[in-house]
Amino acid sequence: MNFNTDLSCILVIFGGTGDLTHRKLLPAIYNLKHSGKLPDNFALVSIGRKDISNDEYREQAYKSIKNSSRFKIIDETLWEDIAKRIYYKKFEFHDSLGYKELNSFLDKLDNSYNTKGNRLFYLAVAPEYFSLINDELYKQGMVKNEASWQRLIIEKPFGRDLSSARKLNKKITEVFGEANTYRIDHYLGKEMIQSLMVLRFANSIFEPLWNSKYIDNIQISSSETVGVENRGGYYENSGALKDMVQNHMLQLLTLTAMEAPVDLSSSSIRDEKVKILRSLEDITPEKIKQDIIRGQYGESMIDNKRILGYRQEDKVSLNSNTETFVALKLHVENYRWAGVPFYIRTGKRMKKKSTEIIIQFKSIPKFLYSKEFDNLNSNLLVIGVQPREGIYLKFNTKKPGTENFIIPVEMDFCQTCQFESNTPEAYERLLFEVMNGDNTLFTSWDEVEYSWKFVDNISSQWGSEKLSLPNYESGSFGPKEADELLLRDNRHWWNL
Amino acid sequence: MNFNTDLSCILVIFGGTGDLTHRKLLPAIYNLKHSGKLPDNFALVSIGRKDISNDEYREQAYKSIKNSSRFKIIDETLWEDIAKRIYYKKFEFHDSLGYKELNSFLDKLDNSYNTKGNRLFYLAVAPEYFSLINDELYKQGMVKNEASWQRLIIEKPFGRDLSSARKLNKKITEVFGEANTYRIDHYLGKEMIQSLMVLRFANSIFEPLWNSKYIDNIQISSSETVGVENRGGYYENSGALKDMVQNHMLQLLTLTAMEAPVDLSSSSIRDEKVKILRSLEDITPEKIKQDIIRGQYGESMIDNKRILGYRQEDKVSLNSNTETFVALKLHVENYRWAGVPFYIRTGKRMKKKSTEIIIQFKSIPKFLYSKEFDNLNSNLLVIGVQPREGIYLKFNTKKPGTENFIIPVEMDFCQTCQFESNTPEAYERLLFEVMNGDNTLFTSWDEVEYSWKFVDNISSQWGSEKLSLPNYESGSFGPKEADELLLRDNRHWWNL
Repeated sequence: MNFNTDLSCILVIFGGTGDLTHRKLLPAIYNLKHSGKLPDNFALVSIGRKDISNDEYREQAYKSIKNSSRFKIIDETLWEDIAKRIYYKKFEFHDSLGYKELNSFLDKLDNSYNTKGNRLFYLAVAPEYFSLINDELYKQGMVKNEASWQRLIIEKPFGRDLSSARKLNKKITEVFGEANTYRIDHYLGKEMIQSLMVLRFANSIFEPLWNSKYIDNIQISSSETVGVENRGGYYENSGALKDMVQNHMLQLLTLTAMEAPVDLSSSSIRDEKVKILRSLEDITPEKIKQDIIRGQYGESMIDNKRILGYRQEDKVSLNSNTETFVALKLHVENYRWAGVPFYIRTGKRMKKKSTEIIIQFKSIPKFLYSKEFDNLNSNLLVIGVQPREGIYLKFNTKKPGTENFIIPVEMDFCQTCQFESNTPEAYERLLFEVMNGDNTLFTSWDEVEYSWKFVDNISSQWGSEKLSLPNYESGSFGPKEADELLLRDNRHWWNL
Repeated sequence: MNFNTDLSCILVIFGGTGDLTHRKLLPAIYNLKHSGKLPDNFALVSIGRKDISNDEYREQAYKSIKNSSRFKIIDETLWEDIAKRIYYKKFEFHDSLGYKELNSFLDKLDNSYNTKGNRLFYLAVAPEYFSLINDELYKQGMVKNEASWQRLIIEKPFGRDLSSARKLNKKITEVFGEANTYRIDHYLGKEMIQSLMVLRFANSIFEPLWNSKYIDNIQISSSETVGVENRGGYYENSGALKDMVQNHMLQLLTLTAMEAPVDLSSSSIRDEKVKILRSLEDITPEKIKQDIIRGQYGESMIDNKRILGYRQEDKVSLNSNTETFVALKLHVENYRWAGVPFYIRTGKRMKKKSTEIIIQFKSIPKFLYSKEFDNLNSNLLVIGVQPREGIYLKFNTKKPGTENFIIPVEMDFCQTCQFESNTPEAYERLLFEVMNGDNTLFTSWDEVEYSWKFVDNISSQWGSEKLSLPNYESGSFGPKEADELLLRDNRHWWNL
């Protein structure tokens, strides 16, 4: 881990009046302060198009923090100290003059807050502005590459496909370089995702079992109960594959499947993750047909309330072909995983909100207990990512009593239960990592590139083939085809 | 499992007024009734030397059950049904006439309770009477070996050494045969001990790790906080080695170390257990000196109360050489366990009451996390036998927070928590097994024989060598020599 010891900086948020800033970034800043992690030399400048004063912005920030901080009680002294370091600037992102003024304002702030020219530019804006802002920052000489540091944080989606991602990346890395580009995948900020490597490699009991000899299959699911909400316009051009699989799901897959890195540096870890993406099996036309299932939620009634189908949502076409659910059966073609299917599934309007990785171990041999007891459960190791964070191990034990009866029970480690107040949230952690100059928890360009290659390959083969949609009810576990995908292999999804 | 379907029987308890009968056996009978496990055709005859009536005995039994049943509320209807089936007979164990009368009384009861001549003779008496009672049962023709069954339950200790055990066994098996002899080791009635085989062989994740490649050492501890209480006379001739190691500790060892049996029949299981006893390394004079530690508790003050040393206890010699603590380092000489030490420890007046088996897995390789973090904890699998029944797994996880800091946590399955009211007690389960004719949970002669061989070998080499005793304080974890035994190997006892 290559921690830069000087965390002093000004955080510049483009999109300072937006949803992400208020729900996640401002509370994260307060949480960091509360935990003593915010550098003493710090200031925050939010850029937006609304015409409000510093004081009005601070007031709004206070409300947002109060609503969304993980600390129930806001320490007013701490807040005062943050508040006076928060500034609001209004200008349009295409307005070069705005950047000029911003630049001299930041230089001035450096004097007040001793922030040494260090900048953290956060692009919390719609993706069409990424490139524009990047270019302006360059033109106005705001990326200096001197003794000070300037880092760019960029939200998803990073491109719409491989070619647009490449274009964007070329521009950004020309300005900031790969080392100073932090591509956010907020799943990587989740506690259990970070624990995954520790679980696997800082313990001696898991690694020996972590391969095709002992694992039957791996299931990675991320389900939401909500629909597309007000993002219909964006979603029509994306769908579950690009919105979820290209980034989050493939990240979970790589962290689950990767080999041990040479060391704990971010580049060694990224090397191993990329190797997994490069080892994904080819997406043949046959595979598209058999192993990749699309779904779209339809209208339904839940608790006597009418739930809109996807096609009825705002800004969605009445005969939209966009998938709100996708399930894939994949193989990682290396020695460790030969023959082990990875089943990946993500969807909206599912029965419950849950992201988890389930390692299903092989059945016991067909003698001894298998002979006397039918249908003994497989051992499962479950890594709960959200909302419940923790690990549990499902195994068989004798049911207490005089008969010899075997039942599955759980050994349970609940991270949220044990460390609740102490658990930082994803954005809090990620911001801190950027200040530290550690990009382990961010997506490298290589990873983005190989993910898009994989996803493009699928979506181009899908083409504009018309599907019979909707095919699953809101509040269900997705289309029946997704169940059949596993049934065919004599397996089933673990809806735990 | 060869269950005999006809459970009908008369339970005949020799020692019916004794401590064991009142604290364990009578409550166990009630518990079985309460759980619907007691056969409908059942009667109980208690034999003792006290001059009391049936009604007086029933009254005492009721009190004992009320005190010691695991059911908080006694169901009076159930009790009434049991009470009228309980009889008390007074005679001296050497009085042949008593047996004659007992025999015809039992035959009469067969008519009333339809118990079909089936008998369960329980020897809850001092060991000097085992042989005598066995002989009288034979002489009076009470062991018939016809269509009916007669079984003998015999409490520990089974012999004082190999030669006395052999003598006793010869007599008993001449009368009852090995198949109808049930040697009680009440540890085998403990829930988690029975679960141990299921844990190992009905799950696919433990067995691959259960060998010298992944296990560093195994620790089997059984500690009591009490001293010898009123058993000083017996204990002076026994000591921890014979009282605990010969039976309980070696049983825990065999169940932990055994190979998977061919099937789940008691003979297949016993075969495997015996193989472990036969694979124990030789006890050389050097091993005696280096790897076997004796201790004796001394006087001390605990919570401002004076605690007697062993030598001050009733019926104990003032310069007694008897060990109240013993720790051993052993090796099981087979392919699975080559190089893995088994550390065994048992003692009285220890810091806490606890019986557990701890599997300590090997450390992770000396790179990656080991390089960045000092003293990472080893993974432990802990099987709690008593008082807390359950399994937990100690492993490393990232401490939530922005730093990458690793801490040990526990994944926990608490049997007592999950099934409390449903957990039968050891004697309850064991009595039921005898009625069922299943001797899996009882010690076979082979096991007794090899255990005594092992123990005799140690005690004969100890001889009458005078030790510098006492050497540990009451309320401690035993003598410092026991700690040094592990320190020498760069290990330590897990006092969890």
